[in-house]
Amino acid sequence: MAKKPKNAINPMRGEDYPEWYQKVIDAADLAEASPTRGCMVIKPWGYSIWENMQRVLDGMFKATGHENAYFPLFIPMSFLEKEAEHVEGFAKECAVVTHHRLEPGPDGGLVPAGPLEEPYIVRPTSETIIGHMYAKWVESYRDLPILINQWANVVRWEMRTRLFLRTTEFLWQEGHTAHATKEEALEETRLMLDVYADFAENYMAMPVIKGEKTAGERFPGAVQTYAIEAMMQDRKALQAGTSHFLGQNFSRVQEIRFQDQNGKEEYCWTTSWGVSTRLVGGLIMTHADDDGLILPPRLAPKHVVILPIYRSDEERADVLPYCESLKQELEAQTSADGKVEVIIDDRDVRAKHWDHIKKGVPLRAEIGPKDIANNGAFVARRDTGEKKGVGREEFVASVSQTLTEIQDNLFARANKLREDNTCEITNVDDFKAYFTPKKADKPEIHGGFAMCHFVESPEVEQLLKKLKVTIRCVPLEGGDSAGTCVFSGKPASQRGVFAKAY
Amino acid sequence: MAKKPKNAINPMRGEDYPEWYQKVIDAADLAEASPTRGCMVIKPWGYSIWENMQRVLDGMFKATGHENAYFPLFIPMSFLEKEAEHVEGFAKECAVVTHHRLEPGPDGGLVPAGPLEEPYIVRPTSETIIGHMYAKWVESYRDLPILINQWANVVRWEMRTRLFLRTTEFLWQEGHTAHATKEEALEETRLMLDVYADFAENYMAMPVIKGEKTAGERFPGAVQTYAIEAMMQDRKALQAGTSHFLGQNFSRVQEIRFQDQNGKEEYCWTTSWGVSTRLVGGLIMTHADDDGLILPPRLAPKHVVILPIYRSDEERADVLPYCESLKQELEAQTSADGKVEVIIDDRDVRAKHWDHIKKGVPLRAEIGPKDIANNGAFVARRDTGEKKGVGREEFVASVSQTLTEIQDNLFARANKLREDNTCEITNVDDFKAYFTPKKADKPEIHGGFAMCHFVESPEVEQLLKKLKVTIRCVPLEGGDSAGTCVFSGKPASQRGVFAKAY
Repeated sequence: MAKKPKNAINPMRGEDYPEWYQKVIDAADLAEASPTRGCMVIKPWGYSIWENMQRVLDGMFKATGHENAYFPLFIPMSFLEKEAEHVEGFAKECAVVTHHRLEPGPDGGLVPAGPLEEPYIVRPTSETIIGHMYAKWVESYRDLPILINQWANVVRWEMRTRLFLRTTEFLWQEGHTAHATKEEALEETRLMLDVYADFAENYMAMPVIKGEKTAGERFPGAVQTYAIEAMMQDRKALQAGTSHFLGQNFSRVQEIRFQDQNGKEEYCWTTSWGVSTRLVGGLIMTHADDDGLILPPRLAPKHVVILPIYRSDEERADVLPYCESLKQELEAQTSADGKVEVIIDDRDVRAKHWDHIKKGVPLRAEIGPKDIANNGAFVARRDTGEKKGVGREEFVASVSQTLTEIQDNLFARANKLREDNTCEITNVDDFKAYFTPKKADKPEIHGGFAMCHFVESPEVEQLLKKLKVTIRCVPLEGGDSAGTCVFSGKPASQRGVFAKAY
Repeated sequence: MAKKPKNAINPMRGEDYPEWYQKVIDAADLAEASPTRGCMVIKPWGYSIWENMQRVLDGMFKATGHENAYFPLFIPMSFLEKEAEHVEGFAKECAVVTHHRLEPGPDGGLVPAGPLEEPYIVRPTSETIIGHMYAKWVESYRDLPILINQWANVVRWEMRTRLFLRTTEFLWQEGHTAHATKEEALEETRLMLDVYADFAENYMAMPVIKGEKTAGERFPGAVQTYAIEAMMQDRKALQAGTSHFLGQNFSRVQEIRFQDQNGKEEYCWTTSWGVSTRLVGGLIMTHADDDGLILPPRLAPKHVVILPIYRSDEERADVLPYCESLKQELEAQTSADGKVEVIIDDRDVRAKHWDHIKKGVPLRAEIGPKDIANNGAFVARRDTGEKKGVGREEFVASVSQTLTEIQDNLFARANKLREDNTCEITNVDDFKAYFTPKKADKPEIHGGFAMCHFVESPEVEQLLKKLKVTIRCVPLEGGDSAGTCVFSGKPASQRGVFAKAY
């Protein structure tokens, strides 16, 4: 046997966090860069995590009355121009389709041909084209609300990209709803924020703060933007999902009008909300360790991997049937979310357990001749690293409970990290010190979430920019609070979460 | 009550088939044209049918060992140039991305800016970019086979488009596999053809002929193309799915190489296979009638719609609870594919049953005070139009069986249409007559499937072009047959299916 390496991931989190992140993705075989600038290839293991996220979220959307539909990838350029802030927000980073064929060029290669009369942009988000359709569909209050979600790819020409966290093309869902009243639209905005928080905490085991974005951080064209914010292991914040109250901004420029019960013509109130493959990045940065990925059971494509251990064909002939029947017994158990998913890795490969450690499978069961003799299994938990021999019956009977424990443990661990690295700051010097790395700090790991009373102003923005800190949100719980602005000393009516962020 | 219209769809199939098709889509609220040229909006009811198709197909792909992954939307232009036939096939109709931002132009509007060094094309299919990745992933025979599927949107700049059947952007799945041997790749190609035929016949209730395409109809770059071909109600053929054996054509130009067991370097053998939202068009044209869509239960988003009938609030208070409990009883039944999906349409709208007739819900149950008095329901079958009062217990107990009968009836009906309109033709005059509309024919409805021995030649191609007939395929069953070429009188070794086609 090869000597067990100290850690599977090199560098470790504390040595070089960004590089560690990249190495975890490689080691777990989740995704890789592609020949298309800033775009990634999501490999089967990574995609199966996204599929699980989709399945759960889709169920939540449908349970809250939404239906799926599909709108075009290409948006006429003129559509973007209608909403002033929206175009400001997206025109600088969008893929533009200008031609509809290729033909041989002067030097033998291909050149674009068939110029389009009006260029199309590849959707960076679909408010404009979906709103255009809603304007056709809505006539009366009886046609409202419209509650539609779309699973789609979108493109934003980001300058700096990073697998899952920020890619030129990414996969996401975008909900777009239209309502007869402001109250109903606001309620929808908050409902979907709650859905996202529920998903993040109860499936991803990633604690989040629900809050409202400040004016400078709003979605281009929105009246209010709500977000869920999570703390990664380097103590930076990740915006993991957003829900926007668009007021009548889009309905006015797109003429989404309806006749109310009194026959009066009104503009609709609209919302939009989305989460993306960025969540996979958040999952990695919340739970992975120096040996690779750790998957919360409720989103793990496989819950248990059985590893047959044998040194001869004879042993193999004994071990494999035992593994097969164990697999069946485990699969007959049901976890909180359905079937317990089990695989057997019977490759004749040394130290193959490392593959599954790196991929983050919650439980590993090694089965060798000795285990069979004891009618047991040697079971390892990925989250705690705990390993022990367990009787077969006990293992099978407790597997569902163990998976729940792992799920809970991951959440508790992430929650503790956040608690340990969140503080109330009341003066500007403490604030600066908090966000300035000290020599003793591990590189790039410092700071955390600072809770500060504040008043928005250009001076505050300036200071924050210098420190590379952003206001993540004003939390729904505890944000509405009177105090003194940390930066200006002025009376403040709100308290925000400040952090460095992805 | 408004007088019952003769038919919900106007014109009827026999009057103007293409217009009828469009009207069924409108009436069932499946999709509509968008402001983006040739692109459609798939509306919730249409999208939920596609979701069911995806769910079933995805299960079939996974059951045959495939995994999902995701590759970039944009393909560097140079990638397309590598395979000569492939570029010939796709360069003439592709969306080209040439810029990565918009900026204000001289007249105030936006203009494309930030020209790309190398333009990207929006994937019309992904052999080239996926092959590029496979070349990186494959080193040894141990890395093979690669069995990957992708659910994605693709773009082909079609000149004439038609909802679902041919749109500029469409949704599809594309499987891409790489193998160590020719035999294994051929087996994969045929396996996926079988999967498609199974899906078409057993879920869509759409009988298909499995066959091989002739040289002129092959996928650009393929060695062999297999397809499933279905007959629509206007007797035209619809190619409903294709599976391509790509030989080593792509692996040679993309350098997808592996070391075999003897350490010798070899090129992989690759395949690709796909079905698209075109299947929804096929479903409509196979089963819909002059009252709208008819959904086969195995793909219907809803199986039963309960229609409460009441004339006063008092009646409503009696009727609704009865409907609710009936819904629960029906949903407790399981059909062959799982849950029986039931909705109650309690809108206070006249003749609302027509909405569900047009949408193709397999069963409608009207519940009024009289039905409650009889402890029954007035049940209508969408496929046969049969309506009768049924006792509640009987209705609930038989619902699953009835849905199976509907599924079988739809298949039998479509199969009979095909049988009635398929003939063996042995001379060219009969062939011409078969494919020439006679005055007595309903407009656009004539011909069918002609089974003919043939030898490929430019003359035959010419004649077929004039008649607007194509060789659909050489069927796997009955295609390998000696005879005399209908067109040239030469000895022929194969018999093909000839038809007008979509």
